[in-house]
Amino acid sequence: MSHPLYGPEIRELILDDDSEGLRAVCEALHPATLAEALDDEFTPEEIWGVIRTSDVRTQAAIFEYLPIAGQIALIQGASKPEMGRLLGKMSHDDRADLLQRLDAVVRENLLRFVDEADRRDMAMLAQYGSGTVGALMTTDYAWLPPTLTAAEAIDQLRQQAPDRETIYYIYVLGDAGRTADGHLAPRRLLGVITLRDLILAPRHAFIRDLMETELEVLRGSADQQTAAEVLGRYDFIAVPVLDDGGGMIGIVTHDDVLDLITMAATEDLQRQGGVSPISGSYFEAGFGRVWYSRAIWLGILFLAQMFTIEVMTQYDDQLKVFTALSFFIPLCLSVGGNAGSQAATLVTRALALEQILIADWWRVLRREILMGLCLAAALGILALLRTYLLTPSKIVPPEDMTGILWKLTWVIGISVTGICLWGTLLGAMLPIFFKRVGVDPALTSSPFIATISDVSGIFIYFNIAALFFF
Amino acid sequence: MSHPLYGPEIRELILDDDSEGLRAVCEALHPATLAEALDDEFTPEEIWGVIRTSDVRTQAAIFEYLPIAGQIALIQGASKPEMGRLLGKMSHDDRADLLQRLDAVVRENLLRFVDEADRRDMAMLAQYGSGTVGALMTTDYAWLPPTLTAAEAIDQLRQQAPDRETIYYIYVLGDAGRTADGHLAPRRLLGVITLRDLILAPRHAFIRDLMETELEVLRGSADQQTAAEVLGRYDFIAVPVLDDGGGMIGIVTHDDVLDLITMAATEDLQRQGGVSPISGSYFEAGFGRVWYSRAIWLGILFLAQMFTIEVMTQYDDQLKVFTALSFFIPLCLSVGGNAGSQAATLVTRALALEQILIADWWRVLRREILMGLCLAAALGILALLRTYLLTPSKIVPPEDMTGILWKLTWVIGISVTGICLWGTLLGAMLPIFFKRVGVDPALTSSPFIATISDVSGIFIYFNIAALFFF
Repeated sequence: MSHPLYGPEIRELILDDDSEGLRAVCEALHPATLAEALDDEFTPEEIWGVIRTSDVRTQAAIFEYLPIAGQIALIQGASKPEMGRLLGKMSHDDRADLLQRLDAVVRENLLRFVDEADRRDMAMLAQYGSGTVGALMTTDYAWLPPTLTAAEAIDQLRQQAPDRETIYYIYVLGDAGRTADGHLAPRRLLGVITLRDLILAPRHAFIRDLMETELEVLRGSADQQTAAEVLGRYDFIAVPVLDDGGGMIGIVTHDDVLDLITMAATEDLQRQGGVSPISGSYFEAGFGRVWYSRAIWLGILFLAQMFTIEVMTQYDDQLKVFTALSFFIPLCLSVGGNAGSQAATLVTRALALEQILIADWWRVLRREILMGLCLAAALGILALLRTYLLTPSKIVPPEDMTGILWKLTWVIGISVTGICLWGTLLGAMLPIFFKRVGVDPALTSSPFIATISDVSGIFIYFNIAALFFF
Repeated sequence: MSHPLYGPEIRELILDDDSEGLRAVCEALHPATLAEALDDEFTPEEIWGVIRTSDVRTQAAIFEYLPIAGQIALIQGASKPEMGRLLGKMSHDDRADLLQRLDAVVRENLLRFVDEADRRDMAMLAQYGSGTVGALMTTDYAWLPPTLTAAEAIDQLRQQAPDRETIYYIYVLGDAGRTADGHLAPRRLLGVITLRDLILAPRHAFIRDLMETELEVLRGSADQQTAAEVLGRYDFIAVPVLDDGGGMIGIVTHDDVLDLITMAATEDLQRQGGVSPISGSYFEAGFGRVWYSRAIWLGILFLAQMFTIEVMTQYDDQLKVFTALSFFIPLCLSVGGNAGSQAATLVTRALALEQILIADWWRVLRREILMGLCLAAALGILALLRTYLLTPSKIVPPEDMTGILWKLTWVIGISVTGICLWGTLLGAMLPIFFKRVGVDPALTSSPFIATISDVSGIFIYFNIAALFFF
């Protein structure tokens, strides 16, 4: 999806100092395409040289699509008033992200060149912590009072449109009140009207009669996941965000949620692989931070796995055939980890998508007992055949070949069956249990389940062996 | 997010036979909300009783939000002409999904009551296989000829709007040509104009001068993933879809991609957990199919894991301390599986998000060698300490405590270090190798990596032991 053709063309225009040509490129290409071409191979000075040829609104659009690191590099090369103007035209949520990453001194210097309304807006967005709807929303939505007619409303929108992230949903707001301490409070949300309905409406109909008043809304302080749920469920382009007093403070748009869902899936995958979530792309993420988020889990699981040694020492001198049994340890243990990883993955994902609720634990358990038995039976038969037919004579002493081999076959077959069933149930129930006690079920990663299953599996294995060989 | 309050209210209206009240409910609630309330606790006959009170367009909207199983049940309860009218008003992509799930006889019977244009449309959508952009797209987009003025265009849209899935992007199409065999060919896409720009434009400006002609388009035959990429990259509400001849055949909208991304993430998680992807929610998926998609992987991995026995039999009689070594087998092997799962997860996800390309394999390898060494060093030190300080005297024979314990400590420490590094490199390189040879990298699941790592890990372990104890 990269556009390798634009780079050389732009370079040539720079060399020719052809600002008309550069302006044409800035206006013709989608800002995302141009940002990608620029980010790949141009210096910050060259990038400024290109985008400065266009109007400040186009500059802001291109700037927004650059990665944050590229944006910060560009800020060094701009004069403060120029950068202040550009910030004024950026979409409000991207701007808030950028400002949070800047050095405090640089930020303060920049903000002096941003006008008062924008500065208040940035302060408002900054007060919502990361992971909240407030941090995801944008404040540049289109709004109207309820007293306009459809024709007046369209005229008003003509003036608002260039600056708004979307004008396809228009929010109908009441009068501004005041908070207890005398500041202007956000206006109350009365309803919403789509641009489609506005165009279809009779010219003289009043907005208050046209607007939809049964609304789905989000709270600024709520978890971002709620935004993904509402937008996913209702196929909206945007959803309004209210503060705790019920005043309208912003909207979350469909494209923010797209990024959010991709990010949440990445985190779930990382947790399932036994890594604490890492922000940033593979090469961008800091080496030390990645090391820590991998080492912490490896360390914990390594310490837990040490219990396998304790368990084995309980059995070694009571079992005449300890050595023969030890050959089958990796085989028997692996079954529990693999079956458990499968069950944990399915149940964790079903919990995340709300296909399963905690209250369904009994239905899940019944299903997984049956599933575990059917899986265990298949593997148990494989294990019986393998042990009886292929065990080398050096593992089982030749002097009592038949008796011991027969017992050993049963021990391996029953152990594989039991450990497979046990791993399946562990994998299915631990995520639900975690959710019940308020821990993220995604922490039941494959390595986590494998470790718990190994420690309990070796206990099962030697106990079954003890039944046959004591 | 469920709305438990609406159910009893609707039930009361049904009992009172209050069709005015039911119609008010149908029109006031969002179709998704109503569909959810109806699906939970009403019979197909009752659902028809409720939605029949509203106009056919509202019926279609509510119907679309029911799960497919619920839709099929409702079809039994409707007269064919009634159902045919409803199909005519459904959004084209949802309708195509439904028809594909119906019994062939039922489908043919229904289609006789659908008008000719809709029938052609359904046949066109049905020709694209599942997983393609064509199967995801909808054909009810708004379009205009290039010769209209802005004012004329808005008038035209007023007539098209009620039937279109979105009118916020309006496609500008050329004249219809004919295919080689004389059928009408899809019209060529000339450009696109947003409703926002149309409203902002001077009334007498021509569409052909206003439209954007640098377009991102999709092919109907392309993989659905390309739709997710384009919509995700450019933050579009919809993207046009062309057939192989360059004619416009549909659009993919933002909400389809939202579902797609969630579904793709589910499949990736399932593959990573060692399950072949299962369609349908946890309880809906057929028991036999789920069993198969879990058993096939468990079986393959179980057979592969059997090689651990072969490897161990190569060493047992050459090593005096075989029994002592066997105590540490689960501990040493688990390290490779866990470290490998982490690396495989990170690399597989980075490949899926195109943060890593195949050509980056050398950069990935260098980073993971360093990472593997740093992780291995931490675990190796833990292993050294554990073995030296805590090995019970019954594992190491008391007569030569110091000499053997010292060697054993080195064997375990070096093995843990080596297996951790080896597992990390396996996990990092296998996904890239799979992608290189055209196999889905997501198949390098945690259980898969753990199994490969176990078989090779036991080889590493006994070879290191052989160096010290031969």
